[in-house]
Amino acid sequence: MAVSQNGGMPQLRIALAQVNPTVGDLDGNADLHVAWTRKAAEAGAHVVVFPEMSLTGYPVEDLALRKTFAAASRQGVESLARRLDEAGCGEVLTYVGYLDLDEVGPRDAAAALYRGEVVARQFKHHLPNYGVFDEHRWFKPGTTLDVVRFHGLDIGMVVCEDIWQDGGPISALGRAGVDLVVAPNASPYERSKDEQRLPLIARRAAEAGAPLVYTNQIGGQDDLVFDGDSLVVGADGALLARAPQFVEHLLVLDMDLTAGGHAGDGELEGLHVRRRVLSEEPVPSYEPTAEPVISEPLSDEAEVWSALVVGLRDYVHKNGFSSVTFGFSGGIDSAVCASLAADALGGDNVYGVSMPSKYSSGHSKDDAEDLARRIGAHYRVEPVEDMVRVYVDQLHLTGLAEENIQARTRGMLLMALSNLDGHLVLATGNKTELAVGYSTIYGDAVGAFAPIKDVFKTHVWQLARWRNAEAAKRGETPPIPENSISKPPSAELRPGQVDTDSLPDYALLDDILDDYVEGDRGYADLVSAGFEPETIDRVVRMVDKAEYKRRQYPPGTKITFKAFGRDRRLPMTNLWREGKA
Amino acid sequence: MAVSQNGGMPQLRIALAQVNPTVGDLDGNADLHVAWTRKAAEAGAHVVVFPEMSLTGYPVEDLALRKTFAAASRQGVESLARRLDEAGCGEVLTYVGYLDLDEVGPRDAAAALYRGEVVARQFKHHLPNYGVFDEHRWFKPGTTLDVVRFHGLDIGMVVCEDIWQDGGPISALGRAGVDLVVAPNASPYERSKDEQRLPLIARRAAEAGAPLVYTNQIGGQDDLVFDGDSLVVGADGALLARAPQFVEHLLVLDMDLTAGGHAGDGELEGLHVRRRVLSEEPVPSYEPTAEPVISEPLSDEAEVWSALVVGLRDYVHKNGFSSVTFGFSGGIDSAVCASLAADALGGDNVYGVSMPSKYSSGHSKDDAEDLARRIGAHYRVEPVEDMVRVYVDQLHLTGLAEENIQARTRGMLLMALSNLDGHLVLATGNKTELAVGYSTIYGDAVGAFAPIKDVFKTHVWQLARWRNAEAAKRGETPPIPENSISKPPSAELRPGQVDTDSLPDYALLDDILDDYVEGDRGYADLVSAGFEPETIDRVVRMVDKAEYKRRQYPPGTKITFKAFGRDRRLPMTNLWREGKA
Repeated sequence: MAVSQNGGMPQLRIALAQVNPTVGDLDGNADLHVAWTRKAAEAGAHVVVFPEMSLTGYPVEDLALRKTFAAASRQGVESLARRLDEAGCGEVLTYVGYLDLDEVGPRDAAAALYRGEVVARQFKHHLPNYGVFDEHRWFKPGTTLDVVRFHGLDIGMVVCEDIWQDGGPISALGRAGVDLVVAPNASPYERSKDEQRLPLIARRAAEAGAPLVYTNQIGGQDDLVFDGDSLVVGADGALLARAPQFVEHLLVLDMDLTAGGHAGDGELEGLHVRRRVLSEEPVPSYEPTAEPVISEPLSDEAEVWSALVVGLRDYVHKNGFSSVTFGFSGGIDSAVCASLAADALGGDNVYGVSMPSKYSSGHSKDDAEDLARRIGAHYRVEPVEDMVRVYVDQLHLTGLAEENIQARTRGMLLMALSNLDGHLVLATGNKTELAVGYSTIYGDAVGAFAPIKDVFKTHVWQLARWRNAEAAKRGETPPIPENSISKPPSAELRPGQVDTDSLPDYALLDDILDDYVEGDRGYADLVSAGFEPETIDRVVRMVDKAEYKRRQYPPGTKITFKAFGRDRRLPMTNLWREGKA
Repeated sequence: MAVSQNGGMPQLRIALAQVNPTVGDLDGNADLHVAWTRKAAEAGAHVVVFPEMSLTGYPVEDLALRKTFAAASRQGVESLARRLDEAGCGEVLTYVGYLDLDEVGPRDAAAALYRGEVVARQFKHHLPNYGVFDEHRWFKPGTTLDVVRFHGLDIGMVVCEDIWQDGGPISALGRAGVDLVVAPNASPYERSKDEQRLPLIARRAAEAGAPLVYTNQIGGQDDLVFDGDSLVVGADGALLARAPQFVEHLLVLDMDLTAGGHAGDGELEGLHVRRRVLSEEPVPSYEPTAEPVISEPLSDEAEVWSALVVGLRDYVHKNGFSSVTFGFSGGIDSAVCASLAADALGGDNVYGVSMPSKYSSGHSKDDAEDLARRIGAHYRVEPVEDMVRVYVDQLHLTGLAEENIQARTRGMLLMALSNLDGHLVLATGNKTELAVGYSTIYGDAVGAFAPIKDVFKTHVWQLARWRNAEAAKRGETPPIPENSISKPPSAELRPGQVDTDSLPDYALLDDILDDYVEGDRGYADLVSAGFEPETIDRVVRMVDKAEYKRRQYPPGTKITFKAFGRDRRLPMTNLWREGKA
């Protein structure tokens, strides 16, 4: 694409600002826009495109319904236009996402800023209302399409979900006539979503009959993580540029465009096209600078690991913390959490606590200590025996009550250390445990964030092996003790306890859970898939009964569509059981 | 209305089955339908109307998206039709709510059952998607209006939200022509909602040009409570019958109707009217039995108290528990919770635990014991000093860490007793504390249910005084110790601590919270309302920072539109602060 002999086609240098805003931080996010637009201007860009709702961060959830917040956001976009002009970036056509509010209601909006003013303003048309999206609650849909003529080129815009719709605003833009489409996005990461994204965007570019510029947010926001993967495709669907995943990035490319000289406002399938001319004069012909970046998508393991690292890092930092503490049990879950935390925050910001009870094995402490050494974490041993004994003796606890008090004593101990030292507490449970309710409320469920909440147990092992292998490749110490990977998992709450006392083998369990939770398959369907009826029934009943426990669990980075949390909200009082009878 | 000389107008005896289904309990709810339809048949009713989604319970939340559940519900309504016929109720035209699923998606549906068959089936048109409603997530809207001719009378139906819409399906029914409209509802209780309901339904009856039969669900479902208040209005808007609030009730009345002989299927403003004739022969003229019941709505305090009692009772029972335990601190919150629990479950199912620490005052224990005696609750004293001491000594806790460990030790103690004895633990915090984050996660926030979560502190006092006065009126022992009402509130986590050390006076605080939370007013607006800027700023910042704590709090009965929980969902990582700067 970076051809110098372009046969006189109008040129434009486009920048995609793949940034990491923080929800609600209007001032900080405005600064981010100024800094990155300046970078774009320094790179000689004529246009810069930020993600969806970049000024407010996404998702703002019910903040969308606060009139004062919407007013501040509206004001923010006006004052950002002025600030950019004052910063010498007024000539760069800057696409910014924000929250608008008019007489109809709140809007998921994008604005084009130019020479200190808002020159176009458009609201999202299609409001997703599934999975983690509640946009019918938060926003009202738009009915206009704002096209600006900039250096003689007609540029239209669509916001996020609008490009996932067949026959949506994109095809309307195609019929109205545009030379370029920009699309600000906040599209949450899901495992292998990048494989869907490129073909979809290529199809939309063909529908629009114009190249499409897709900028996506990166970073963690509560349980969501955004991977970026911003890209540009030509009108023919060819991939022209692609940003790396999970990092802030300014993707710059030179484009040779066709000035179609489209015209006419008016109604088009219920949408009102509004055109505005900013400048007719093409950019004077120039020599393109460099080949645009086309980043390779990450491997599946690297992608998931990055998602978990970024989700954890941003949850900790955006909540004003810098360090974390949690139990180092010697087991695989806490070892993987520790390795993620070290990658996210640095080993020096990880405070591991071994909390042995009288049922803890010797290898638990050894493996925990080994882990801390490998990742450079702080490490202390705080036995819980004395605390447990007071409860057991005073209340005459036995059985489940005695098992639970051990887990709970540990939770309270971590919270006390958090109160003393200001670390954020992590809960180390995995998706399999959460699915079947194999955890103790106020015990191992204690914590402000659960890094591997959406990772099945067999997947935890797989990630551990992958991370160790990566370290070995780079000549570094593998972070996770081999023994934590290979030994049979145990909660160690009674003598000789192992997980398989209470649960089917994890490979089988995860297989059933994958079909039942991710695949939404019912009992009869699982039977016909060849699983043993008794096992299905047992697993399915455990899952259906564990809703309340899941609600009490902290948020954690979501890597699948069917993460527990906002994606699967069942009533707590619910007698429906999917099992055989 | 109950006139014997009716000038030959067609008569019909209508029954409204104001029942309390349990979400997901398809079998139990089917039994409920058979039992109540039988009662209606015994009362000589020709038509019986159950609430919205009465076969599944409401709301089913994401269960709506489980195909197996929808299939079971569809099957359930067919088999209910057969069961009713076998039970000798086949001649009673029975309106039942259920979950349907077709090629478009899940549906909030109502069916008319007659002689063992489903004779009409209609889907809700308007799907509310605000407050606690996520119906755009759960359902697809219907496009048909099913009218059946029964004993020569044309009966149309609309589901719930459809009657809250101006110019909705009701006005379409009016234009198509019907003699009677039945409306199955699941309309959650809100303080004084009954005052809106009657005028609205009267207006709709006028629009339909026909009497309107409105049946509402009663009972608690997670954080929602339904008050019933089922009613019938004439075509002229006159109130003909009204069921009592918060109890299951069969409301029966005789109606003299006009047979308009309406005809014609077809499209009407995008809705497809479908007519079906079941029987043309009018009911033989009969002598009406009794004056219909027109219950008086409850007073504000009685209504709120009933909502809290029913919400608590159903949460406990529907989750399979029969008894509750929680801390009896001697303060007003636990005293009101205890009194509610005694009204809901009987004093004998309430297990109070006094858990003094070294900072507890003498009167705390006395007042707690007095409370237990008044309501007939079980009572024990379990000091937490020994447990607290181990933590404090081993971890060298001071300040906030020491305060919190006391609250947390109590939470763990209650959970241990719950594990031993099978009681459900209640959290006794009020809405004011929750709003400003004046509580300890894993401490006083421990519990499966929080009865007064949506009651501001000043309102707690008001309810306590009202409940005591009611007891006095009936010559019973006032349940709440006078001392718990009159003494200054204190968390007693350090020497001489009182709530006003950390918080503004409760009257002022609740005033600001009411404007800020319920009224959605911003900082500037609160200043102009006359509050002191520093106090507003302090309160508003506390509220905005407490989101994470609120998320960790158990569910509790919602009595306002702006309850914390499903009605106000802010991001946890959110730097927007409504305060002055």
